[in-house]
Amino acid sequence: MKYIYGTMDHEDLTISKLQDKVYIGTKVTVKGAIHAVRNMGEIAFVILRRWDGLLQTVYEDSSLDVSVNELKEGETVCVRGILREEKRAPGGIEILLTSILVLSKPKETLPLDISKWKLSASLEARLDQRAIALRNIRERSKFKLQEGIVRGFREFLYEQGFTEIHTPKIGAKSAEGGANLFRLEYFHRPAVLQQSPQFYKQMMVGVFDRVFETGPVFRAEKHNTKRHLNEYTSLDLEMGYVENFTDIMEMETGFLQYMVNLLDKDYKKELDLLDIKLPKVDEIPYVTFTNAKELVSEKYHRKIKNPYDLEPEEELLIGQYFKEEDNADFVFVTHYPSKKRPFYAMDDPKDPTFTLSFDLLFHGMEITTGGQRIHDYCELCQKMKARKIEVDGMQKYLDVFRYGMPPHGGLGIGLERLTMQLIGDDNVRETTLFPRDQGRLVP
Amino acid sequence: MKYIYGTMDHEDLTISKLQDKVYIGTKVTVKGAIHAVRNMGEIAFVILRRWDGLLQTVYEDSSLDVSVNELKEGETVCVRGILREEKRAPGGIEILLTSILVLSKPKETLPLDISKWKLSASLEARLDQRAIALRNIRERSKFKLQEGIVRGFREFLYEQGFTEIHTPKIGAKSAEGGANLFRLEYFHRPAVLQQSPQFYKQMMVGVFDRVFETGPVFRAEKHNTKRHLNEYTSLDLEMGYVENFTDIMEMETGFLQYMVNLLDKDYKKELDLLDIKLPKVDEIPYVTFTNAKELVSEKYHRKIKNPYDLEPEEELLIGQYFKEEDNADFVFVTHYPSKKRPFYAMDDPKDPTFTLSFDLLFHGMEITTGGQRIHDYCELCQKMKARKIEVDGMQKYLDVFRYGMPPHGGLGIGLERLTMQLIGDDNVRETTLFPRDQGRLVP
Repeated sequence: MKYIYGTMDHEDLTISKLQDKVYIGTKVTVKGAIHAVRNMGEIAFVILRRWDGLLQTVYEDSSLDVSVNELKEGETVCVRGILREEKRAPGGIEILLTSILVLSKPKETLPLDISKWKLSASLEARLDQRAIALRNIRERSKFKLQEGIVRGFREFLYEQGFTEIHTPKIGAKSAEGGANLFRLEYFHRPAVLQQSPQFYKQMMVGVFDRVFETGPVFRAEKHNTKRHLNEYTSLDLEMGYVENFTDIMEMETGFLQYMVNLLDKDYKKELDLLDIKLPKVDEIPYVTFTNAKELVSEKYHRKIKNPYDLEPEEELLIGQYFKEEDNADFVFVTHYPSKKRPFYAMDDPKDPTFTLSFDLLFHGMEITTGGQRIHDYCELCQKMKARKIEVDGMQKYLDVFRYGMPPHGGLGIGLERLTMQLIGDDNVRETTLFPRDQGRLVP
Repeated sequence: MKYIYGTMDHEDLTISKLQDKVYIGTKVTVKGAIHAVRNMGEIAFVILRRWDGLLQTVYEDSSLDVSVNELKEGETVCVRGILREEKRAPGGIEILLTSILVLSKPKETLPLDISKWKLSASLEARLDQRAIALRNIRERSKFKLQEGIVRGFREFLYEQGFTEIHTPKIGAKSAEGGANLFRLEYFHRPAVLQQSPQFYKQMMVGVFDRVFETGPVFRAEKHNTKRHLNEYTSLDLEMGYVENFTDIMEMETGFLQYMVNLLDKDYKKELDLLDIKLPKVDEIPYVTFTNAKELVSEKYHRKIKNPYDLEPEEELLIGQYFKEEDNADFVFVTHYPSKKRPFYAMDDPKDPTFTLSFDLLFHGMEITTGGQRIHDYCELCQKMKARKIEVDGMQKYLDVFRYGMPPHGGLGIGLERLTMQLIGDDNVRETTLFPRDQGRLVP
């Protein structure tokens, strides 16, 4: 009988491993894609690209199997050679080539000059050729950082006793968001794509007390702005046995602190490539919705137009205000008006026209909506009735309250927006792997 | 200015923390849901439930604020009392109550006796009341184990240099699987839900060499079996620079080894609750498709009906064969016929009627499909042409090959099926949080 025993050591080394001094002066094997060829006549530099960086190889010996003139960007190769220190090369090392084996060849030359430091192509052009444009090491590093954010979210929440869940994205008609839902036919029945795991995560609080999910959500909004997408990744959590809705803001702050540490520790290379300064998360100021509106109105001489919501420009000014007054990168805005929050939001007992809710602004942009939820069955039914929300299709959601739920609350973070603000990009499509908007369904 | 500083210590303790001897004999505070009340007259046992287990509290003092007769299952409470050792209680501890504060009350008594060791309700009834049925601690522990599987997948792959990606679930018409696609209207354009992240993960191999995704996939198949779902969670990976398609099987074996260790280390409580014996993963036998067919045909005297595919019964017998002959829980079946594999599968150069592909069977059920893919642009185009697959809508996918791709391969694991086989359940709905099948769109 023949067996598979698990991962085996291979002869070829990663670029990260080559940084280890023990290999200096020895013959090593490396695989990679040819990122750039710089032919200087006598010698040529062949730059290889792997997920963990770039590697300079030096072509000096004209007796090699493959002529340097045959080597093309986009080919993948397996090379052997002597590793040596070279301060001017990426990572301080280079390989003097002794053999080259071509693993695969492209059909055509690349349509973008991916080996440049900054791609000169427009956002549209880069998105059209997304999988090629991301071969540029600065472009791709945005998504490595995005990995770090999600990883931090999960690791932190595991530590905090949360359970990860996977809830369905196809559902029956939902009570939330009517016009914003994508509709489909599900075996001759009408169905929708979930715009949030809200109801499911609340239902699961009755089971696991604390739950989270990282997954896609779908919004058929006809927005065409720099900060809206029709499909995005939501980092959702919901936690039971809260004492105060501030518990939820504390949990988010804890996550941000964990995330910043993780990025600093494990994603330094990407932070440096993009020249990112990590935000200040040791303490995050909070301010009520009403107070925030007044503060920016006063300081920036701006009339309050809509008393029930924050306009994007107002969010920007709130961000600016707290940066100027307090050097803060983040600010929690609390107590949003009840009429602008969903039916399940818990009203503030001190003034039920406001809710025990919050948004988190990061450099003046909303990246999170959260708050405490109603946990009492009768209170929930009353609020639904007052808002004329149909109970039809909501019975299973209401059942968990009927049979008892702890006080709870939660939040949802837009992953692509958080990434955008962290990087300082000005369009959420920059930090979305394959964006979906009204015009974009491919790639 | 007021600030949030991150997570704070709260007075109430988790059940896990109470296991620490230092609290024995002290006054402690705990929150939880009343899981069961056993009133013995003189004293009563009030069992609390939290995510980390059950806790026995003892009601002896009739002078407490709340009468024991008022306490009902499904209420959530905050209790105080003296912690003491009690061998007969869950976890070997109990609390002698000195105060009870009711946090929330249910409207009605529970429709299922969740405090029983085994829920007696049928699968249908349990799925109808899923969020209630899962308050049974054995039922819910299946999903804690499922968390462990996903966690193991990600942790192992991070270690192996993989990058996590998030690919869109709404897309334009796909070349794969015509009839199996859910269709929707996307801003007046026809769109589909992705049945797999296959094309995207291949495209990202050109960027990050090794990528993975854990997310929902959608299949409009009209199957109604114990092992099919119309939406499920797929654990997908794709890796570049493979030397042989066995590299991919080695990676999967490495994941299973990591997962089994993680479950053994961090999910012992759940394994014990469900009485699960972890499978053997130190070495996994592999056998060709053709050979496997012959072996079971011979041993179990079964005629080979379909030479191009494995019937479910045949998979079961292959599982039985390797269990009997080799005490194996898993077996890789390799070299599936080319005509039964997708166009992007790499044919075996030794015999192009077969592919460099595999399925992994776990106790006789397919839980993974994988293999090496074609990386050469011209070869891919030729195979598409031979199969009369339209290039329309596939250009962006083909572009990554046009501009160069390393030799690569990957796999997809059905999370719910893997969980089902690990637990030994006989229906994949048992291990799906909120299943979607032809009849089930709620909850």
